[in-house]
Amino acid sequence: MQVQIIEVGPRDGLQNEKRNIPLETKINFIRNLVKSGIQEIELSSFVSPKWVPQLSDADELINTLYNELKEKDIKFHALLPNRKGLDRALKCNLNRIALFTTTSDEFSKKNMNTTVDETIQEFKEIIPEFRKNVPQGWVRVYLSTSFECPYAGKIDPTKTLEISKRLFDLGIDDLVISDTLGVAVPDEVSRLLEIILTTMVSKQISCHFHDTYGMAIANVARAIKLGITRFDSSAGGLGGCPYAPGASGNLATEDLIYYIHRCGHKNPASLKQVATSSKEILDFLGKPIVCKAQSAYLNSCNTKAA
Amino acid sequence: MQVQIIEVGPRDGLQNEKRNIPLETKINFIRNLVKSGIQEIELSSFVSPKWVPQLSDADELINTLYNELKEKDIKFHALLPNRKGLDRALKCNLNRIALFTTTSDEFSKKNMNTTVDETIQEFKEIIPEFRKNVPQGWVRVYLSTSFECPYAGKIDPTKTLEISKRLFDLGIDDLVISDTLGVAVPDEVSRLLEIILTTMVSKQISCHFHDTYGMAIANVARAIKLGITRFDSSAGGLGGCPYAPGASGNLATEDLIYYIHRCGHKNPASLKQVATSSKEILDFLGKPIVCKAQSAYLNSCNTKAA
Repeated sequence: MQVQIIEVGPRDGLQNEKRNIPLETKINFIRNLVKSGIQEIELSSFVSPKWVPQLSDADELINTLYNELKEKDIKFHALLPNRKGLDRALKCNLNRIALFTTTSDEFSKKNMNTTVDETIQEFKEIIPEFRKNVPQGWVRVYLSTSFECPYAGKIDPTKTLEISKRLFDLGIDDLVISDTLGVAVPDEVSRLLEIILTTMVSKQISCHFHDTYGMAIANVARAIKLGITRFDSSAGGLGGCPYAPGASGNLATEDLIYYIHRCGHKNPASLKQVATSSKEILDFLGKPIVCKAQSAYLNSCNTKAA
Repeated sequence: MQVQIIEVGPRDGLQNEKRNIPLETKINFIRNLVKSGIQEIELSSFVSPKWVPQLSDADELINTLYNELKEKDIKFHALLPNRKGLDRALKCNLNRIALFTTTSDEFSKKNMNTTVDETIQEFKEIIPEFRKNVPQGWVRVYLSTSFECPYAGKIDPTKTLEISKRLFDLGIDDLVISDTLGVAVPDEVSRLLEIILTTMVSKQISCHFHDTYGMAIANVARAIKLGITRFDSSAGGLGGCPYAPGASGNLATEDLIYYIHRCGHKNPASLKQVATSSKEILDFLGKPIVCKAQSAYLNSCNTKAA
């Protein structure tokens, strides 16, 4: 079975880094990920540079990589935090956009200063305008705090289902069930997915798990059992969520690749090459390795070399 | 459902530390684990001080803790690598011993300079003698490389079953299915456990997963589905296997506690207290935090404090 990896390191992984990362370093990181066999990448976010100065080079980064890699069959997306981002996306000829909402008004207000209803109203403007300009375009929506919110607590799966349905009614292509805090365990994953899969098909759903408590691969394993085949991850486990106290660490791409390959599922990404690529960016950022499979791979190289 | 944690940090976690750890530091570590609600602990190993100098204080450590904690209902064990260890165990009045074998002659030879048959022959002397001296005693046996050996490759589940049966025929109380390399994924866990559970009951089996590639909690989740309720783990993820290239990191007790409690299963251990106890020993060893749940807990404390 083919299992798709959606690499979110360049955006979700780097957005909160305080140290300025030169455009060329980011582009090299993404080039290396593409060389490593990664087929789908969230490149950046069209967020205001005031809010996330780290990603203020989104337009230039996307233009450069589009021109360079247009021959390859890579799916590139970028996050649009609001309507303003759409003009920038259209100027870049970006044909895949990602939007963002949540199950919780509290989280939405603290994060984006809007309610959930207001974000959905905005999607009703953004999505048709994007479709009109890019008829072959593709829209994914992150549903943040799908399981639990740091302010509202555990989210009833029927509430997550209700918002999911409203999003699907907007004609989106990919709903991203997101465990923003990284708190869910497999039984919660099945409870939620089972009710969502009563109204949507598994190909319309991705899962975005954080590894805050080390549960991410267990949750991937459960979601795959239920037919989900698209998973977000971040090279080297870069990133986290600054608005969610205690939340740290996306599922690492290396752990996901290990899992996919060891299960006999198919994905062309090379664990070796991704581990090496993310080591390079971690070294640049002065950060330690936190991803288990990356550490194991690099240690076993050392052992063989010794 | 009650899920039992067998804490192996004091032995499996510390045995390969080069830096000498004073007896009092180890005893404090174990005292803190007991205060944290841990109910079953492998204290040390009666291995020759020539081979593992770090554990040369096993006898004194066990005597001290036995005297101090005999009123509490804590299950203490220690590893006996061979017949010589038994005399020391009996002198300490230890009523729970752990023995060690493997599925692979190659691993056994490199690790203990014996074949698998020879270890089982030795068990045939050790177990009756232990039973004779300690009629209420309890014997666990680690079956190392239950899934894969660094030298012999993947192990056919029927081979693991065959050795498991021979071990049960010796009248052992607890068989520890051990993924020494930390390479298995949940489907491998179910394939093996399903055939083992055709001849043994789940209460006679523990699982010992390493988190080398980040798969340990996913494997625990699968094993629990099959009725296994006893899991080894190491506070702070201390330890690994020096004889297995690339193998690093036991399943961390903190991740396991998080998983157990979030699932609604029962175990009296406190994540907060174990995280604090293992932070202390990591600080002593000058080692970084590698356990996700420990890191999340300690970060969330900092967030709250800030």
